[in-house]
Amino acid sequence: MPEKRYKVAVLGATGAVGREMLKVLDEMRFPASDVIALASPRSVGQQVDYGNRQLDVQAATIEALAGVDIVLASAGSAVSKQLLPLAAQRGSLCIDNSSAFRMHADVPLVVPEVNPLAMIGHKGIIANPNCSTIQMVVALQPLHQLAGLRRVVVATYQSVSGAGQKGIEELVTQTAALLNGKPFDVVVHNARIAFNVIPHIGDAAADGYTDEELKLVYETRKIMGLPNLAVCPTAVRVPVTAGHSESVVCEFERPITVAQARAALQQAHGITVVDDLAAKQYPMPMDCAESDSVFVGRIRKDFSVAHGLALWVVADNLRKGAATNAVQIANLAVAAGLVHGA
Amino acid sequence: MPEKRYKVAVLGATGAVGREMLKVLDEMRFPASDVIALASPRSVGQQVDYGNRQLDVQAATIEALAGVDIVLASAGSAVSKQLLPLAAQRGSLCIDNSSAFRMHADVPLVVPEVNPLAMIGHKGIIANPNCSTIQMVVALQPLHQLAGLRRVVVATYQSVSGAGQKGIEELVTQTAALLNGKPFDVVVHNARIAFNVIPHIGDAAADGYTDEELKLVYETRKIMGLPNLAVCPTAVRVPVTAGHSESVVCEFERPITVAQARAALQQAHGITVVDDLAAKQYPMPMDCAESDSVFVGRIRKDFSVAHGLALWVVADNLRKGAATNAVQIANLAVAAGLVHGA
Repeated sequence: MPEKRYKVAVLGATGAVGREMLKVLDEMRFPASDVIALASPRSVGQQVDYGNRQLDVQAATIEALAGVDIVLASAGSAVSKQLLPLAAQRGSLCIDNSSAFRMHADVPLVVPEVNPLAMIGHKGIIANPNCSTIQMVVALQPLHQLAGLRRVVVATYQSVSGAGQKGIEELVTQTAALLNGKPFDVVVHNARIAFNVIPHIGDAAADGYTDEELKLVYETRKIMGLPNLAVCPTAVRVPVTAGHSESVVCEFERPITVAQARAALQQAHGITVVDDLAAKQYPMPMDCAESDSVFVGRIRKDFSVAHGLALWVVADNLRKGAATNAVQIANLAVAAGLVHGA
Repeated sequence: MPEKRYKVAVLGATGAVGREMLKVLDEMRFPASDVIALASPRSVGQQVDYGNRQLDVQAATIEALAGVDIVLASAGSAVSKQLLPLAAQRGSLCIDNSSAFRMHADVPLVVPEVNPLAMIGHKGIIANPNCSTIQMVVALQPLHQLAGLRRVVVATYQSVSGAGQKGIEELVTQTAALLNGKPFDVVVHNARIAFNVIPHIGDAAADGYTDEELKLVYETRKIMGLPNLAVCPTAVRVPVTAGHSESVVCEFERPITVAQARAALQQAHGITVVDDLAAKQYPMPMDCAESDSVFVGRIRKDFSVAHGLALWVVADNLRKGAATNAVQIANLAVAAGLVHGA
């Protein structure tokens, strides 16, 4: 019997995450019968890479999604809200990287290493969590299983690729301008990002927090199935091109040693432990770009509470933080027979 | 009666902090009868700015310190250990920016806004705390007075000027090389710093922490007079030229509201509150360089504990984090009649 193959649409194919989705689909040899690239009308006429093929970009319309088995969407919340419910109704499995549906009660929010079973009974839309949440929960889950997670204080060091291609270009342009004493614009980020850090990603939300920060609270609770988990987030943009870093300080219900934590992290799927301070071995964004792993280092006892650990967690936000996680969800859906339309 | 004037020596005058000390002495119109610039023998022959004068750099020897009333030292621990005890014995007041004496029981470790009285009874050496500690305790002290500080989780975003002139040059050189696809060296920082972040400042110390991180624990306890204060530190180098930023998450013994905290911070000496997220107003290193203030923003309730607050604290690490604090100690010593030799 020939392997079942699926028609896949990448929605938002010209964006930083969309391009990475096409790359990951090819690298992981996703069983696609066809892959189509969809984007906003102004991108029609462009081409995007898929393996050694170039795909013509088509307009993202509901008509273009006809017959598509799996939609990988990263075109922003407005487009997702407009197209995905209809596509889902017509039988497509939509894996959505926007924040549009993440907190909907009937939409699974999935990180395959953490809550794969949440996908069962999906209603056509599965949400891909925010980049900074994905890498954190991958690191926290094995520790939670050991000792019961109670509270997390997280401070992020997020790269400009989280703001897409334009975010990267603005950092490079501003940096070159500053080095040469020339003027520059501030358009994409909330302030100048070159040789600066900005404690503001996304929009102001509630109680003095940004929406980017609140995602670390609510998405983490939903994915880990811990509705009362205490999380204090601070989200900061740093002048790094690719890769998000996080200082993650966690408290547990039960005792947990550094050795136990390290062993659990080393055994966990999707995690690479890089942890030898004396030998200058720890995860850094420059080393983690283009990888699908979540890198954990600086594992140490937090002496300031009863059962505490401090970690340093780094991942490529466009890969495991977005595209890779979405394709992993698609792979799992295929393996589990959860793709309706095929 | 004419104003009393003091002979001042800046030890380590060619370094980033030493140059800033000379600048601050001039800006604050410190009552100096004479200012001499001392550095290592290889810097002899150089000149450094003091107001509109140029000072000839002399070799840092005990002979050169004869008759000096106040030594402002920033030449590293080895030089401080060698020269300051002798100079102190001979009657100089030595204000030392190195870590050599900070934790000595008979050496006051002083931040004028926090523990000015600790200077009384000094034995000739007063230690200037580490940059990242100074700005944090300035922000914490008014909140501690309100509600009793219990625990702090701090993650730093430290600029390369913390590693001196060479640290700044390495960032600029590497950045230009990377933008132009050219090779570069890694000498000053523990890894490439351009477009990267490094979770390692200083040396590996104990229990998986760096010495830079442990300073945030032990110096904070000593300055605030809270020997049992719980502190969990993470110190990270970021590609910023000047200005350290800190995510400071604190727990208190008693209730404290955001409004109370903001009012206390606004009234506190040495603090500038910049805090309006919706209007994109928060402290950033690019705005805080060359200032003597500690800037506090992103003041918000930490919902993850009973009495919690989260803050974002930024200061110029060469100014309030080093040179300004040292000159403020000297000013206070002069005002309080604590300079022996004069």
